Amino acid sequence: MTTTLHDTPRVRLDDPFWNAYRQLIREVVIPYQWEALNDRVDAAEPSHAIDNFRIAAGQRQGEHHGMVFQDSDVTKWLEAVAYQLAQAPDLALEATADEVIALIGAAQQPDGYLNTYFTVKAPAARWTNLAECHELYCAGHLIEAAVAYYQATGKTALLDIARRLTDHIDQVFGPGPEQLRGYPGHPEIELALMRLYEATDEPRYLALGRYFVEQRGQQPHYYDAEYERRGRTFHWPSHGPAWMIKDKAYSQAHAPILKQDKAVGHAVRLLYLYTGVAHLARLTGDAEQAVACQRIWDNLTQRQLYVTGGVGAQSHGESLTCDFDLPSDTAYAETCASVALVMFARRLLELSPEGRYADVLERALYNTVLAGMALDGRHFFYVNPLEVDPATLGGSHRYDHVHAMRQRWFGCACCPPNIARLLGSLEDYIYLQREDCLYVHLYVGSDLDCTVAGQRWHLRQRSAYPWQGRIDFELSGEAQSGTFTLALRLPDWCPAPGVRINEEAVEVAPLARDGYCLLRRKWQAGDRVELDLPMPTQRLRTHPRVRQLAGKVALQRGPLVYCLEQADNGVDLHNLSLPPTAHFHEIQGRAPLTQVVQLETDGLRWNGAGSPDQSLYRQDPASTQASPQRLTFIPYYAWANRGEGEMRVWVNER
Amino acid sequence: MTTTLHDTPRVRLDDPFWNAYRQLIREVVIPYQWEALNDRVDAAEPSHAIDNFRIAAGQRQGEHHGMVFQDSDVTKWLEAVAYQLAQAPDLALEATADEVIALIGAAQQPDGYLNTYFTVKAPAARWTNLAECHELYCAGHLIEAAVAYYQATGKTALLDIARRLTDHIDQVFGPGPEQLRGYPGHPEIELALMRLYEATDEPRYLALGRYFVEQRGQQPHYYDAEYERRGRTFHWPSHGPAWMIKDKAYSQAHAPILKQDKAVGHAVRLLYLYTGVAHLARLTGDAEQAVACQRIWDNLTQRQLYVTGGVGAQSHGESLTCDFDLPSDTAYAETCASVALVMFARRLLELSPEGRYADVLERALYNTVLAGMALDGRHFFYVNPLEVDPATLGGSHRYDHVHAMRQRWFGCACCPPNIARLLGSLEDYIYLQREDCLYVHLYVGSDLDCTVAGQRWHLRQRSAYPWQGRIDFELSGEAQSGTFTLALRLPDWCPAPGVRINEEAVEVAPLARDGYCLLRRKWQAGDRVELDLPMPTQRLRTHPRVRQLAGKVALQRGPLVYCLEQADNGVDLHNLSLPPTAHFHEIQGRAPLTQVVQLETDGLRWNGAGSPDQSLYRQDPASTQASPQRLTFIPYYAWANRGEGEMRVWVNER
Repeated sequence: MTTTLHDTPRVRLDDPFWNAYRQLIREVVIPYQWEALNDRVDAAEPSHAIDNFRIAAGQRQGEHHGMVFQDSDVTKWLEAVAYQLAQAPDLALEATADEVIALIGAAQQPDGYLNTYFTVKAPAARWTNLAECHELYCAGHLIEAAVAYYQATGKTALLDIARRLTDHIDQVFGPGPEQLRGYPGHPEIELALMRLYEATDEPRYLALGRYFVEQRGQQPHYYDAEYERRGRTFHWPSHGPAWMIKDKAYSQAHAPILKQDKAVGHAVRLLYLYTGVAHLARLTGDAEQAVACQRIWDNLTQRQLYVTGGVGAQSHGESLTCDFDLPSDTAYAETCASVALVMFARRLLELSPEGRYADVLERALYNTVLAGMALDGRHFFYVNPLEVDPATLGGSHRYDHVHAMRQRWFGCACCPPNIARLLGSLEDYIYLQREDCLYVHLYVGSDLDCTVAGQRWHLRQRSAYPWQGRIDFELSGEAQSGTFTLALRLPDWCPAPGVRINEEAVEVAPLARDGYCLLRRKWQAGDRVELDLPMPTQRLRTHPRVRQLAGKVALQRGPLVYCLEQADNGVDLHNLSLPPTAHFHEIQGRAPLTQVVQLETDGLRWNGAGSPDQSLYRQDPASTQASPQRLTFIPYYAWANRGEGEMRVWVNER
Repeated sequence: MTTTLHDTPRVRLDDPFWNAYRQLIREVVIPYQWEALNDRVDAAEPSHAIDNFRIAAGQRQGEHHGMVFQDSDVTKWLEAVAYQLAQAPDLALEATADEVIALIGAAQQPDGYLNTYFTVKAPAARWTNLAECHELYCAGHLIEAAVAYYQATGKTALLDIARRLTDHIDQVFGPGPEQLRGYPGHPEIELALMRLYEATDEPRYLALGRYFVEQRGQQPHYYDAEYERRGRTFHWPSHGPAWMIKDKAYSQAHAPILKQDKAVGHAVRLLYLYTGVAHLARLTGDAEQAVACQRIWDNLTQRQLYVTGGVGAQSHGESLTCDFDLPSDTAYAETCASVALVMFARRLLELSPEGRYADVLERALYNTVLAGMALDGRHFFYVNPLEVDPATLGGSHRYDHVHAMRQRWFGCACCPPNIARLLGSLEDYIYLQREDCLYVHLYVGSDLDCTVAGQRWHLRQRSAYPWQGRIDFELSGEAQSGTFTLALRLPDWCPAPGVRINEEAVEVAPLARDGYCLLRRKWQAGDRVELDLPMPTQRLRTHPRVRQLAGKVALQRGPLVYCLEQADNGVDLHNLSLPPTAHFHEIQGRAPLTQVVQLETDGLRWNGAGSPDQSLYRQDPASTQASPQRLTFIPYYAWANRGEGEMRVWVNER
């Protein structure tokens, strides 16, 4: 079942909702992150990431500072820059990037090795601690940046660096007698090698990625072998001696990929790994690996996914827990994990275009990923809980990982550049082109140039999504006519989608398949398609096994999950409830939420009257009287933009 | 406001509910713990505690094993043995205890110092790390055991050891130029010194206890000074270097006692400390210290107490968190903390007899303390959550401290002997005698001999408490008549208490004061008092600021808090709800809960039908249909005696 992608379609994004984010990325996030990488942001933890390269390049004296994976902050920024340059020229930005690339090249060792931590701190310890030390992870991000920069600019300097590094890695790792049988503790290079292979057509890169994937979790275990070889030293002491080596499920190395049946361990590692596996499975046509990906996907999305598209229920190891365990207040739900979930979903769509993948992609993108960044583009959440009470945060260590307001930058600064590179490459997530079928996964205003069924077409998509559900498509281009399928995703949240072609209604149900409405016909230039996705406000409830959410509902309208905030509803949000019969009204937000559709309804406040009774437990039935209160819900992604306060997604229904 | 206790009343316990526990303590717990201390219990972590004394005494070669406070397991066991011997002679047990006492004496150093950890492992490091290393804590438990053993047997061997140790400590610590200005990181010796003072009338012991209390939290801080002196070493690495030294609130050393206004830090430390302070305040008449105790009590009981009488909402540091933070599933609620709460409440009652202290004492005793031990007397909970789902426990690290079934013994074995010594000395918690007033705090069948208003009286108390609320008292004895007040506690849970004297009803309301019904009259031998405490099943709700419990109720009948268990109600207890109108029926339990009053009611099960829908989130309103289900509640203390399963105290009301 080998499937290959056809010509990459050319997409130009033009969308009222996303244009604002793209402007933020371009004008605020990328410049701000550049300042941060150079330690010029006050009140943020210093990064030292650029300095590390200077020191490794011999251009400066000093010590390495920061995490063992600090290099990746630079290459992720470069990748985000590449997407900017692909959208529009920016000579100054490109010049800065070229300087950074030259610096990276100067830090590369004669044999191709490239990692500032080991080069500066422990050159003899290269490749001795794959389980913990992120060398292959950093290589992966460098490769991703190189591919993106090459595709954006045509320049090969960074691609050449990446190829030299990859060639070095390809010599070091493999089944040969002199080679190491290892694989990364933090997956990332697998997905990067797939991109490098597609950019270069060099089959060694595909084979190397496949080796890493297939070697993973084999016995005798590589982590144990290298641990013994280096004299039982370990890098991360946080959870006890050598915990990261011993807890092999933490890095999804507890079993070979084909034997893994649940989503376990560090959420970002899991999702980067399976993004690579899904890509590999498509490129090689390996059916067993494809099934393995779908098995993990099913467990993750049907058993362990937050309604906001967040992944990872616990702070310990930034990791998944077990089926149906979804605490709202202690959630980890790292921004990067939702970015990675979007990437995994895209690879699965490319493997097998089914709407359920895009449904989750959309949920993660419009909720947790967007929540990761403030509306000012300068503050970021690493952790995305679904319930916050600032008064409790400082009081209990179980909230040590939770913040009530976004922070400027992080010592471990993975999330901000991950948001930048995802939102900067949103073009890659909207459409999927097959031989005679064009899939539309996301309703993002854009102009597509592509070749379908042998003919060039231009597709224009316009809407006021995610606020309104009407999406207009218009075909034009060189081709006067041609037969192919336009596959429009029917979102899982939409109860009654409607389609009109050239003003004429089409019956959707008979055309619906795997989450898409398959419009197959002889298309003409000038054809117009109107997709109508009614967006009623919906109450979501959970699977009955979810203990934490019994008796509670969350609101969703279109792709957006909503929440209550103290700014609109006062304190003690837990005392608010939604009667089963409540109706919702859409209202326009006020600054800074001007663009936002808010939801209002008649709710109840319980125990409201601030009883003078100081007792902790009462028999007084009067204390349970409820009084009417108008409730205002805002989209989850927009919370914590109006000062510190309580927030809550799941609300008692009573 | 100096108040002193009068002649200690002599109490003999005889109560159908408690006799069974006392028999367990005598026949199972104390022998079992003796085996454990000698490492003869299979499937339990070895203690090595007796061996440590043998090694310290030079009777055996070897290394010290176990915690830095391992000695206290032995002395707490000895204290429990003392209470047994006070109840009834047991020559074999007493002979064993005398052997242990001789062994302890042999381990005592010529200068009086006594601690096996330092004697064996680090004799030069004595008294160099008070913040972390429990020497004074262990001394406290030795003193408590010595006082109890002396009072039970009249033998002075252990008392002499304790006095030699205390005299040594009194030389080492104090304001003198050659003395250390320190105080224990883990309080305990303060309360022990008060007992030693009362047993010996030696004022130096009172003064030493007062010194430790008043020195606590002073600046410059002793923990920092000794940390610098010993070269910045630390004993406990678990939460980062020197965390226990830096986090001074952890051991209530962040401020002087008189400046502390909230219950913070390690729960057992807090409660041992304030037990000692309350005792000291009574003995010295220090009004400021008394107010400080009440301030901490109020914060603890009105803001941070679990409905089960559990204390400590977080595993991190086994500690309190902040006001109104009472998560059910991640609760710590250490058994020892509730034992200590009972002790603190008793000292406050002795300082100022108000029913609210006894209300909490009763709540802790009948719920968390009893829950700490299985009905077989062989298994113990260290941690007492209010909600458990065994399926989730192994899956999330936030439940690392939680067990769904009681364990046999613990590496840190503080809880089992603490239960044994509290239940073994229950006599001391029932009555309080003042000049012309006899308070009854607890309704525990017993016979009291005491002197009130100058005359000897015998009071017989009988009931079927906690299952039935009728308690019968009968006065007899040498005195034919005399005027005094019999003060019967009116529990906070009882809406309409009734009193009859010699069959004649008494109007309670005019006699009620500070939680007691004050029956003042000229009593005659032969007088009978009947207290009637109706025990309707009550729904408890929380203060509106408690986020976790909004919309939920707990059931209480008499002093007992109830819970749902899977054994009676099936899985997914979170889907069960109590309609606001449900009525409760009392039924007799089946083995092993034969003695137990269970509660039955007509409840609802939501999302019950096990929909084939695998999706995690649903819009389907049909999934929220509720079906009737008969619900069975059992007393919380009796949970986890019928195999592993779910348990839940707080239930949705809908």
